Amino acid sequence: MLKNFEKGAAADTFGTLDTDALKQRLAVLQQQIKALNIPVMIVFEGWGASGKGSMIAKLIANMDPRGFKVYNICERDKAEKRYHFLQRFWSKIPPYGNLAIFDRSWYREISALPLKEQRKAEKRIAEIKDFEAQLSNDGYVIIKLFLHISKKEQKSRLNALEDAQATRWRVTENDWRQNKNYQVHYDIFDNMLRQTNTPHAPWHIIDAAERKSTTKQIFSVIIRTLEEAIQKKESGNTAAPIPMQLVHDIDRVPVEHLAEINLSGKAPDDSLYSKELEAKQKRLFELQNEIYLKKIPVILAFEGWDAAGKGGNIKRIARALDPRGYEVIPVSAPTEQEKAHQYLWRFWNNLPKTGHIKIFDRTWYGRVLVERIEGFCSQSEWERAYDEINSFEKSLTEHGAIVLKFWLQIDKKEQLNRFSDRQNTLEKQWKITQEDWRNRERWPEYEVAADEMIQLTNTKSAPWTVVESNDKRYARIKTLDTIIKAMENRLQK
Amino acid sequence: MLKNFEKGAAADTFGTLDTDALKQRLAVLQQQIKALNIPVMIVFEGWGASGKGSMIAKLIANMDPRGFKVYNICERDKAEKRYHFLQRFWSKIPPYGNLAIFDRSWYREISALPLKEQRKAEKRIAEIKDFEAQLSNDGYVIIKLFLHISKKEQKSRLNALEDAQATRWRVTENDWRQNKNYQVHYDIFDNMLRQTNTPHAPWHIIDAAERKSTTKQIFSVIIRTLEEAIQKKESGNTAAPIPMQLVHDIDRVPVEHLAEINLSGKAPDDSLYSKELEAKQKRLFELQNEIYLKKIPVILAFEGWDAAGKGGNIKRIARALDPRGYEVIPVSAPTEQEKAHQYLWRFWNNLPKTGHIKIFDRTWYGRVLVERIEGFCSQSEWERAYDEINSFEKSLTEHGAIVLKFWLQIDKKEQLNRFSDRQNTLEKQWKITQEDWRNRERWPEYEVAADEMIQLTNTKSAPWTVVESNDKRYARIKTLDTIIKAMENRLQK
Repeated sequence: MLKNFEKGAAADTFGTLDTDALKQRLAVLQQQIKALNIPVMIVFEGWGASGKGSMIAKLIANMDPRGFKVYNICERDKAEKRYHFLQRFWSKIPPYGNLAIFDRSWYREISALPLKEQRKAEKRIAEIKDFEAQLSNDGYVIIKLFLHISKKEQKSRLNALEDAQATRWRVTENDWRQNKNYQVHYDIFDNMLRQTNTPHAPWHIIDAAERKSTTKQIFSVIIRTLEEAIQKKESGNTAAPIPMQLVHDIDRVPVEHLAEINLSGKAPDDSLYSKELEAKQKRLFELQNEIYLKKIPVILAFEGWDAAGKGGNIKRIARALDPRGYEVIPVSAPTEQEKAHQYLWRFWNNLPKTGHIKIFDRTWYGRVLVERIEGFCSQSEWERAYDEINSFEKSLTEHGAIVLKFWLQIDKKEQLNRFSDRQNTLEKQWKITQEDWRNRERWPEYEVAADEMIQLTNTKSAPWTVVESNDKRYARIKTLDTIIKAMENRLQK
Repeated sequence: MLKNFEKGAAADTFGTLDTDALKQRLAVLQQQIKALNIPVMIVFEGWGASGKGSMIAKLIANMDPRGFKVYNICERDKAEKRYHFLQRFWSKIPPYGNLAIFDRSWYREISALPLKEQRKAEKRIAEIKDFEAQLSNDGYVIIKLFLHISKKEQKSRLNALEDAQATRWRVTENDWRQNKNYQVHYDIFDNMLRQTNTPHAPWHIIDAAERKSTTKQIFSVIIRTLEEAIQKKESGNTAAPIPMQLVHDIDRVPVEHLAEINLSGKAPDDSLYSKELEAKQKRLFELQNEIYLKKIPVILAFEGWDAAGKGGNIKRIARALDPRGYEVIPVSAPTEQEKAHQYLWRFWNNLPKTGHIKIFDRTWYGRVLVERIEGFCSQSEWERAYDEINSFEKSLTEHGAIVLKFWLQIDKKEQLNRFSDRQNTLEKQWKITQEDWRNRERWPEYEVAADEMIQLTNTKSAPWTVVESNDKRYARIKTLDTIIKAMENRLQK
């Protein structure tokens, strides 16, 4: 890609406007994307000393500071290394209508890898492609700029930076190493650019040799892309969803339909149950310690009918655990801030670090359950969510997480009993709301959605466990058993 | 304090309820504090192996997970060390109606200090007292528990933990060191407890020798405190505000009243202005580099009349800076989430790390300006805010930050000219709203509030600069000059 560019094939044509006019145009566009709720991510990659910083300074000079943020992406620190490499970028996606500008980006996680770790790079590329695809599907505009300079030009700039007292400290050994091994880095960059040059998030290679022309190229690319995005949004044309890459590698496992589940499972009698529960909780506590030492993140996801016993089930797990190593994440309707981001954003922001356990009381599957049924998202949105969720979970398991998903199944009669009980018991009344009764009326629709969800997202690496929950104690034992087995399996590896 | 406790003087009396009844009582109280919007912070401090973790596990076992969070406070990591030591605790204060439970807390920052750093400890104690006082003033309930065990008991527990395979890794060298130097730590703890035992946030020393009795003591203290808080809130009695400690040490500097400001200052003519601006921007850029290397955080706070030129002024500063080292924080009406916390929370969450610059376009002074005038907070709230803000800024400057505050002053006629201009210029229309016109009608009230604010918060370490802004260019030069001088002064030290 760089070769072709150098031959002039990919050079951007740009208009006759001068820089001031371009800046003004951009300021107006920023107000328009705000009004149209279009989120924009601008990525600056390129050679050391290619001028990323000063170009960003120019870019934002006339922008309304209420609408953008600049992120300077360094090497991941110790705390960040305890999460999936994309976590820190997910957490930085802008709210709808806003811009995020990245000085280095997720591409750092590829280009900074040594050549011998190319296999790792390939995996990361697939994950990055899904990251960008998911955001594009959600309406995010991703503008990727690569600032290109020659070896000679880089060398002379590094020298100039070193000569000035104010900027001397900025030139690092890494910069000089890059210059010395220019060709090696050239090949890494070229490979990265080629493999991640997608129609929805194409690379724009910028000839950064000369400051004034660089500015014009960059403004032109951004203005053109924003104009197109605005036009597209205004015309209401929605493109076909971009398929996910990671789902090619998942093993989808066939599973019984919900309607076929036998709900007659019963726990042993009182004293036996207590003993069994206690023994399993003790075992889980031991395993938590091992998981912690082995630095394995654990995600336990709970879905199921209202009053199916999620809370009680989670409590039995939580009681077994050291509170320093787990957290329960209760998921309810998204806040205003959460609604202003792609729907997986709030879950990416709540993942366990290595060695820790997060228990989700309701999950990202809300997209294909309540959001689908209540019409909070469009049909095409929930239809493509299965793949997006599979890709999300694949990223987590690739990162080393144990991901277990539980569907707590009861029948309609049992739910009525429990609703009545809650209504009639003072300390349980907070658990039952009008919404629960309304959801109950839509039982058949929820049944179809839940069944479809389990069929389409039951994978070998992130399996569903349908927990027969008419008998609460049976359900608790089964859940604990499932978690214990999954942890033991992993620890034996 | 520990001595008296050991003699039985401070022992808690507790009721005859059994543990299950206490747990149930707590679950009901949690719903009540939710309903009454009372935020609660529970601090667990104490000896290593005194059982903090398992007590927290018991405490939360029956709680609604939607209403609390548990924080395990370790040593500050590298990223956290780039902020004031209280920053990570401010960021963790719970929203109104919720609980935050701390396994170790801000007291770690004292008790982990070696004896020879006692002077540091004293400063920190003053800051901690202001932290707790501010939160108490805002209605936060702070429950502090110290789990006390004897040297012998600690030793036998550490041995037991080491004997069990699952828990062996938890015993660290530090634990054994604490046991060996029990008396030294005893004195440090005792001093810390005595100095921070305040009426609004008293310490409860818990005899943690025996598990069952420990549980009962802890539940009793928490239940009693919550019941009192609920009663107080329901009765509507508000206590007199707790005074801040740090403000004793600030030098308040007399300053001209706004009405006396001469606004006739004019910038030099066009070409001279451009040259001067450019020279000062260049100097600022150099200083940013030095500030970065010296790891000094910088806070530039802008307030002033609508249309006084805050945006343009900030732009001239921002243009001079490397975008990797600064951020503009536009402050508007607080979000729902922000409204659910003490008013300084959102600013503590947005402080610069060492070496970085944050420019606030409107600030925490909103409390004594718009919130005062529009009645968004009560009179007693904005009246005590002057001290709270002085204490906040004192913390920042003690931490090493440069704090500069700018009030952009124009007269009423000039404002009208600028409003009209904005209304009549397409690309400026977004800058003017109905609210601006409404604010203009309350000019005299704002003038009183702004004047009082400057008089009461103009300190030597965090001074106000009143910038005569009828001539925009004069204002820009003066602002740049002020920043440059402050940075130069600091760097010479």
